[in-house]
Amino acid sequence: MNAVTESGKPVLTVLTGDDAPPDMTAVEQDAEVRYTDAAGLADALRGADALFMYQFLSTALPSAWHAADRLQWLHIAAAGVDPVMFPELRASDVVLTNARGVFDDSIAEYVLGQVLAFAKDMPTSLRLQDARTWRHRETERIGGASAVVVGTGPIGRAIARLLRAVGLRVSGAGRRARDDDPDFGTVHTTDRLAECVADADYVVAVAPLTDQTKNMFDGDAFAAMKPSARFVNVGRGELVVTDDLVAALRSGTIAGAALDVFDTEPLPADHPLWTMENVLISPHMSGDVVGWRRELVGVFADNFRRWRAGQELRNVVDKQLGYVPSGS
Amino acid sequence: MNAVTESGKPVLTVLTGDDAPPDMTAVEQDAEVRYTDAAGLADALRGADALFMYQFLSTALPSAWHAADRLQWLHIAAAGVDPVMFPELRASDVVLTNARGVFDDSIAEYVLGQVLAFAKDMPTSLRLQDARTWRHRETERIGGASAVVVGTGPIGRAIARLLRAVGLRVSGAGRRARDDDPDFGTVHTTDRLAECVADADYVVAVAPLTDQTKNMFDGDAFAAMKPSARFVNVGRGELVVTDDLVAALRSGTIAGAALDVFDTEPLPADHPLWTMENVLISPHMSGDVVGWRRELVGVFADNFRRWRAGQELRNVVDKQLGYVPSGS
Repeated sequence: MNAVTESGKPVLTVLTGDDAPPDMTAVEQDAEVRYTDAAGLADALRGADALFMYQFLSTALPSAWHAADRLQWLHIAAAGVDPVMFPELRASDVVLTNARGVFDDSIAEYVLGQVLAFAKDMPTSLRLQDARTWRHRETERIGGASAVVVGTGPIGRAIARLLRAVGLRVSGAGRRARDDDPDFGTVHTTDRLAECVADADYVVAVAPLTDQTKNMFDGDAFAAMKPSARFVNVGRGELVVTDDLVAALRSGTIAGAALDVFDTEPLPADHPLWTMENVLISPHMSGDVVGWRRELVGVFADNFRRWRAGQELRNVVDKQLGYVPSGS
Repeated sequence: MNAVTESGKPVLTVLTGDDAPPDMTAVEQDAEVRYTDAAGLADALRGADALFMYQFLSTALPSAWHAADRLQWLHIAAAGVDPVMFPELRASDVVLTNARGVFDDSIAEYVLGQVLAFAKDMPTSLRLQDARTWRHRETERIGGASAVVVGTGPIGRAIARLLRAVGLRVSGAGRRARDDDPDFGTVHTTDRLAECVADADYVVAVAPLTDQTKNMFDGDAFAAMKPSARFVNVGRGELVVTDDLVAALRSGTIAGAALDVFDTEPLPADHPLWTMENVLISPHMSGDVVGWRRELVGVFADNFRRWRAGQELRNVVDKQLGYVPSGS
C-alpha cells in the first residue's frame, strides 16, 4: 500500500510544539519518524508519507505544502480541522483524519461548568471573596432553563446530553432541520439562526469553522437573543464577529459570555474582553483534561496501525464539508 | 382546634428580618398577624397561637420563649431547624414544621457548580483573567470522579441524583447503613466517617446540625480524606471544626473547600478562609434562587391552611432527632 523507505518503513513527519508527543514508541518501531518544529516543516515534509500534526493549532502547513511531494495521509490532533483547510490540501488526494471523540465529554463538562458559573453568579462570589465581602444575592436555577447548541457534531451532542441530564431544555442548530434527533430532539437549521436563539437562556457555539459558519454570530445574531441570554463559545473564535460581541455585551443586548476560543490566540493583553465583568475567559483549554495528550496520541497511533495494515482509517474528514460527517 | 381571638381568628406572630414576607394576603385574611423584629419578639409572642419564623437564622427565640404562653405551632422558613433546637422548645408541646423541599434542587445545582469550579479550575481562570494573563492548564473530568454526600435528607438526595446524572460515582453517609438506597446506592454510617470519605474526590456536607453531627468534620476526618479531595459544605458551619479545616487546607491534607456556611456568619473580615486560594466562599446563599422567598411563604401558607382546617401539617420536625424524618 503506502510507499516505504529503504528500511521498509514509511516516513512519518511529526509537527511538534513546545512539547513532544508522549507514547510514540509503538509508532516509532514501525516508521522512520521525523520530529520537526514549524520552521523545519518543509524540509521534513519532503519525502514524507504521512504527517502527524501534534501541534494542531499551527498555521505553518500552507507555506510548507510545496514540499509535500508524496504525502498520503495527514492526521491532526484536534477536532477542528480549520487550520489545514487551505485550497491545495482540499484539492489534493491526501487523506485527512482528526481526533474526533477525544474532547466530547470534557468540553461538555466545561460548558456545564460555565452555565452554572453564570446561574450561580460564581464570578461575583470570587470577586467578593477577594474583597473579603459578605453579600448575599439571589441566584438562578438551571433546571428548566433553555439552551440551544449550535453545532451537531459529537461535541455538540455530548453537550446536549449533559445539559439535558441536569434538567435544561435543549435544542440544536445544524445544517438539516429535524424533530427526531436522539440527542437534541429538535434541530433547527443554522440558516435561521435568529429564530433558533430567540428563546434560549444559553447559546452554545460548537460548530466547525467553515466558510458557511465563519462570522455566523454577528450583531444580528446577538440582537435576536434575549437580553438575559449567555453566549458560550467552545468552537472557534472566528465563528464570532468579536467586535459585535463586545458591543452586544456592553449594551446589554445579551447578559454574558463564556469564551474559550478567540479569533486571535492568545487573546491580546489590551483586548476589551479581558476586563468585562460579564465575560468569562479561558485560554482554549475547555477539552484539555489531564491525560488529553496521551489520548490524542492514542487516536493517532490507532489510525497509524490501520494505515500500515491497509485498513480503513477512522475519523476521515470530508474536505469539502470541513469536518467528519456523522456516522463515520 | 386552635385557640382564637375575639375576632374569631388565631394570633399569628411573624418574625421578619430586613424584608417582610411577600404573598401573605391569604394568611392575613384568616389570622390576626403581628409582624415583629427580634427586639419585639417577646411582646409579640404573648398570646400568640402560632409563630412564623420568616427570619430563619434568628437566634432571638430562646430569650423570648418565656412569653410564649399559648403557642401551638412554630414554622421556620428553613430546612435546618438548629436555631430553634433549644431545650424548652424541645420539651414543649409546640409543633415545629420547616421548609423541607424548597431548597433541594437549587442546592444540588450549587454543589454541582462548585464541583465543576474545582475540576475545571475556574477560580484560576478568573484570577488570570483579572490579570489579563493567558495561561493554558490541564483540567479534570468529573465523569468517573467519586463523591460522598454526608446527609441523606431530601437535599442530600437531590445532590446525589444530580451528581450521578453527570457521571459521578456517589455514595451517602447517614445514620443507618444500607446498600439499596434509591438515590445513593450505598449509604455508610456516619459513625465510620473516616472510612466513608477515604476514597472520595468530593465530600459534601449537608447533614442537619444536631448534637450528633456537630463538629463531625474535624482533623481526623480531614486526615482520612485524600490529599486531592475537595470538601463542600452546604449544611451548617458548625458541622466543621473550622480551625481544623483551615489547618487541613494549609497543610495540603485536602486540596480545597467550597463553603457556603460558617460557624460565624457573616464570616468575619479577618478570617483566614477569605484569602486561601483553594477555598471558595459564598455567603449562605446556595439554595436562594430568584423566587425563593415566595416559595418559603408558600410552604408556610399551605401549612397555615392545614392548621386552620385541623388537617395534618406537612414537614413536622421530630424535635428529638432535629429534622423531619424521611417519609413524612
